[in-house]
Amino acid sequence: MKILILGAGGMIGRKLTAALLRKGELTGRPIQAMTLADVVETDVPASSVALRAVAADLSAPGVAAELVAERPDIVFHLAAIVSGEAEADFEKGYRINLDGTRELFEAVRREHAASGYQPRLVFTSSVAVFGQPLPPVVPETQVLAPLSSYGTQKAIGELLLADYSRRGFMDGIGIRLPTIVIRPGKPNKAASGFFSGILREPLAGLPATLPVGDEVRHWFASPRRAVEFVLKAAEVDTSGLGVRRTLDMPGLSATVGEAIEALRRAGGEEAVALIQREPDDAVKRIIESWPEAFDPQRALALGFEADASFDEIIRRHLEDEVAGNGKRA
Amino acid sequence: MKILILGAGGMIGRKLTAALLRKGELTGRPIQAMTLADVVETDVPASSVALRAVAADLSAPGVAAELVAERPDIVFHLAAIVSGEAEADFEKGYRINLDGTRELFEAVRREHAASGYQPRLVFTSSVAVFGQPLPPVVPETQVLAPLSSYGTQKAIGELLLADYSRRGFMDGIGIRLPTIVIRPGKPNKAASGFFSGILREPLAGLPATLPVGDEVRHWFASPRRAVEFVLKAAEVDTSGLGVRRTLDMPGLSATVGEAIEALRRAGGEEAVALIQREPDDAVKRIIESWPEAFDPQRALALGFEADASFDEIIRRHLEDEVAGNGKRA
Repeated sequence: MKILILGAGGMIGRKLTAALLRKGELTGRPIQAMTLADVVETDVPASSVALRAVAADLSAPGVAAELVAERPDIVFHLAAIVSGEAEADFEKGYRINLDGTRELFEAVRREHAASGYQPRLVFTSSVAVFGQPLPPVVPETQVLAPLSSYGTQKAIGELLLADYSRRGFMDGIGIRLPTIVIRPGKPNKAASGFFSGILREPLAGLPATLPVGDEVRHWFASPRRAVEFVLKAAEVDTSGLGVRRTLDMPGLSATVGEAIEALRRAGGEEAVALIQREPDDAVKRIIESWPEAFDPQRALALGFEADASFDEIIRRHLEDEVAGNGKRA
Repeated sequence: MKILILGAGGMIGRKLTAALLRKGELTGRPIQAMTLADVVETDVPASSVALRAVAADLSAPGVAAELVAERPDIVFHLAAIVSGEAEADFEKGYRINLDGTRELFEAVRREHAASGYQPRLVFTSSVAVFGQPLPPVVPETQVLAPLSSYGTQKAIGELLLADYSRRGFMDGIGIRLPTIVIRPGKPNKAASGFFSGILREPLAGLPATLPVGDEVRHWFASPRRAVEFVLKAAEVDTSGLGVRRTLDMPGLSATVGEAIEALRRAGGEEAVALIQREPDDAVKRIIESWPEAFDPQRALALGFEADASFDEIIRRHLEDEVAGNGKRA
């Protein structure tokens, strides 16, 4: 069992690498080799598995072909420029999020043509593929009408994944991850970053800014759940998916106010007092274009499971990131 | 008023060119120049308007930039490889239908960055962007889940059109044309070609093959309506479209059997007898994945109108293609 992780240096990529090394197998077959690719060199953990780090830009000529030439059994395609950055830098967003994805899929197709190669390919998409107006609970047949370049690029990736899978070039599965909370580490450029910030920073005794109101409702998953989703996507039976190869992942539908109440229970009034309200219309417009809740029937039927509450999300953060001093990251 | 037509040599392109020359103006401004681009050199009709034919592949380097450098006020992007050919030749379909479209949009974006240029861009899409399962009447919020590479390429074009318009690089509008009947001339490689063939050929005393059953229901528009749709899309107010810049066009929902009954009324039993039934499962599978009827509320509100019946569609064919000996083509 050989595994390729693209975007291995990101938050999910690092946690996925650690989880795979702990697990030791995938689809019942022992993991023999893993290639960890990212635009910057990824730390290689000590392990009995043959680990190789590759620093390369997936959209550059030849990079995808070289990575696919190893014929990994499973490809995790997590690499992406986040929403805020893709909106700020149009060309970079399209180059990484669209051209990079297409180069990867084309490399797989060429290897398929040469040798019959057909890997399982797990693609992380996003609820940002949806626009407005949206019903309060989004059905699985909802039109993709993104209000951001990031959402557009992810929607195009989903369409390509479906067509390349329908053609038999790969066994692709896309998963639309909820917004991940609590992201460990420093704030990133995602427009959704504050959802983590208003919990992570106060839990560490630091101030955090909140650009939207308490009434804003959104769709969440913990990092631990997100890694479970990605792992499960690598193993799940895709034969019943048909042409819609991308699934809405189960999430927790909750408001900013509910997150703050959970923070109050976990960290007390002094934690809540560290949240500074600084309304930001640009962030508000992006967030309000995102869905509030889904009806992820297909994923639930396949056994994907959501977090139960913001209290659980905070508890997992404290277990995984604070108590263990980041060892599980 | 300068106009650029991409795919000017195709059926809609030729009829659009003729209609524009008859009309003489668009959006109330006289037409001064038209560039007719296609992969093969287009016939240039005699006219007082400055007409230029360009034979070029839109996906080739520099072609789009050279065409856009003229800063046409309105761009009609009709160029595409049809469904059957895009399915048979994967690389050609993606090169023409996806890369060609992206090169065009990128050329417009660069000219926008250089000079503030922002043309109206009319993009012809297709009902092939939808997959299965579909409700009997498809709503405007239906997910795009194409079952063909052609449908995938058109869906991606719609997403790019929306994002480039949202960013202000162009004033884009997409129109999902129903299947065009009766296409004049020879059969093409579209999987839907027989819908025209079973009427056009018998009306001319020639045999035609029917690969599907009488019960197959589909969504139709005459060539005359299709040209009206494209012209109207160039003039309509796009300010209320929001991020969903592509509209389902009104059509006639009818079965193969209903088309044959209209043929019987127009051409008699001897015409119907020329239809040879040759079931073809490959064609049947493609056609059955296409929608049967739509609820095109937004287009109807903007004044787009459907054909009333197959009798009307046949009458228009006889007027435009047979009585006038093709002069109006």
